[in-house]
Amino acid sequence: MSDEFLWPPVGDGSGLARDETIFPQELQLALRNRGMPLEALRYDLTPTGLHYLLIHFDIPAPASDWSLKVAGLVSRPLRLSLEEIRKHPEVTQTVTMECAGNGRALLRPRPISQPWLVEAIGTARWTGVALADVLHQAGVDAGAREVVFSGADRGVQGSEIQDYQRSLPLSEALRPEVLLAYEMNGEPLPPQHGHPLRLVVPGWYGMTNVKWLKQIEVVDRPFHGYQMERTYRYAQGPDEPGDPVDRIRVRSLMIPPGIPDFLTRVRLLEPGTVEIQGRAWAGDRRVVRVEFSSDGGESWTAGQLEPQPAPFTWQRWACPWNASPGRYTLCVRASDEAGNTQPLEQPWNYQGMGNNMVQHVDVIVKE
Amino acid sequence: MSDEFLWPPVGDGSGLARDETIFPQELQLALRNRGMPLEALRYDLTPTGLHYLLIHFDIPAPASDWSLKVAGLVSRPLRLSLEEIRKHPEVTQTVTMECAGNGRALLRPRPISQPWLVEAIGTARWTGVALADVLHQAGVDAGAREVVFSGADRGVQGSEIQDYQRSLPLSEALRPEVLLAYEMNGEPLPPQHGHPLRLVVPGWYGMTNVKWLKQIEVVDRPFHGYQMERTYRYAQGPDEPGDPVDRIRVRSLMIPPGIPDFLTRVRLLEPGTVEIQGRAWAGDRRVVRVEFSSDGGESWTAGQLEPQPAPFTWQRWACPWNASPGRYTLCVRASDEAGNTQPLEQPWNYQGMGNNMVQHVDVIVKE
Repeated sequence: MSDEFLWPPVGDGSGLARDETIFPQELQLALRNRGMPLEALRYDLTPTGLHYLLIHFDIPAPASDWSLKVAGLVSRPLRLSLEEIRKHPEVTQTVTMECAGNGRALLRPRPISQPWLVEAIGTARWTGVALADVLHQAGVDAGAREVVFSGADRGVQGSEIQDYQRSLPLSEALRPEVLLAYEMNGEPLPPQHGHPLRLVVPGWYGMTNVKWLKQIEVVDRPFHGYQMERTYRYAQGPDEPGDPVDRIRVRSLMIPPGIPDFLTRVRLLEPGTVEIQGRAWAGDRRVVRVEFSSDGGESWTAGQLEPQPAPFTWQRWACPWNASPGRYTLCVRASDEAGNTQPLEQPWNYQGMGNNMVQHVDVIVKE
Repeated sequence: MSDEFLWPPVGDGSGLARDETIFPQELQLALRNRGMPLEALRYDLTPTGLHYLLIHFDIPAPASDWSLKVAGLVSRPLRLSLEEIRKHPEVTQTVTMECAGNGRALLRPRPISQPWLVEAIGTARWTGVALADVLHQAGVDAGAREVVFSGADRGVQGSEIQDYQRSLPLSEALRPEVLLAYEMNGEPLPPQHGHPLRLVVPGWYGMTNVKWLKQIEVVDRPFHGYQMERTYRYAQGPDEPGDPVDRIRVRSLMIPPGIPDFLTRVRLLEPGTVEIQGRAWAGDRRVVRVEFSSDGGESWTAGQLEPQPAPFTWQRWACPWNASPGRYTLCVRASDEAGNTQPLEQPWNYQGMGNNMVQHVDVIVKE
């Protein structure tokens, strides 16, 4: 497809915005994609309708004759109904999922795309079967290297007409926690989360978890699709290939305390001791430390961190704060077992991927 | 509360923005409030997690000891558990609900608030009991004039600390279709839609449908709360009292045809005949005509309009379009049985309320 089919670029064509105001096209994305309101950090499991949601193209129309095609380098190519898939042992996995672009709109200059602040997060119970079981059923040939997953959502990105497609190295695809999921929080997948079947890859950023899955293809070389090569890269500019985005980085968020001002979301608190609470996560690693700051990150106090209830899920934390009258910027930062700590200032990248800068919450404590 | 507690105003303090770019504070609102992706117009009933959502303050924490207080000018003040409320006859009502601020961000100058484009809409089946039954149980005194509804969500707006509160004239409150709802689409209300109980007033804009209902008070004079007097007004400036916003105006939306470009949402179509489809609604009135335009509203073709499946619900419409190669701006407009038609250019008001300008969808038809 040639560029003549495309609308003019948003902004000056650099892919970056020079100030903090948001373009109308980005607003369209913010209104159809959905963040998790931060007070929902109170729930161990995010209620389904509050889980973050990023839909690249459109939610596809329901397919009455849906089946999953398993093809490529396999001894027994398959076409499986949902009933046939469910003959494999059922697995349930609680997973904290985050969009790779979470935090993008806080970068300066600001990469132009879905303008997440910090709310592209959620934790759900996914039920399905192990992808490995279906791959074994098909019989993966020697020489297989990657598995390519195709969704039913179709659109244009970077002048390329495409089905949404992502791949995984075969070794990752065969991990026991990787699911073909048909239930979310004990109910059939809702349309917006990939009905009837989606991939769930615990510990990886959201783009990996292909929704509306229609085809799995085993291939003998790295897959060069748009969503692998042109986006979801850690790069410093549009022409640099960069490194692939994969696992979720360590992050923590607090429930903004007190009550909000409607428009600015600045918080108002009564003076006294307040229990600051939230969640912390680190993909496939455990969080080992959470620290709280009431002075914008100048000084830090260790919070109480609860153990991880299950692998790949967020951990609850709390820290008491003695709030005296005044204005404050509250922050929280987490560290994981691999020694990574959230940065106070975000290392920048061109697509705004993998951000995990510490959260800032402005509060006013009354006299 | 004095203004010293508040953050500086957003923008220049006029409440209006001079251009189309969105302020960061508005982006925060857009990311926590949720629009309905327009492809969800395909569903008669909007899946729960795709229904639009406007939360003024925070989703309140679950109350373990919740009860509904019925007070004021009643012979028998009540405190009712959900079980006691459910002793009244159960009523189910399908209702199309729309935010009064839908379309706000399309106005010029642009009122600064939740920056909806056109997606603050949804249709759900609400189950509960008639509010009239509970009011009769309490025994409304002579001299009663209004009923005030208080939610558990609390915050600051316009320097005023407040629970979210709205009132209805007694005659409206007693209409048989007005519900105290505890189920949405056959499930207990989810947290974000008002668990455990909300008001549902079919035909009125969304702000009327108080969520997390905790108190009903019968009063003998008009209620002057913030959400009645300071906002939800049709006014031309900040100091004009204006007229109250109440019932939903006539509107139609189409499912954007073809496939989207990720960033701009411009649509790409194959040439040929395409069935343009969508929904139209008009609050407590029927829609009697839907017209389609492929030239930005210069010329119009009558669409096929299905009958209303039930009062207060949207109606399906369709119109075939012979798409030949080129660029087009598609529009749809509806007219209701009272003779109202959607405007091509929106009459402006200061808070951006009750907008129902015709939708514009930019499409490219391939060669």
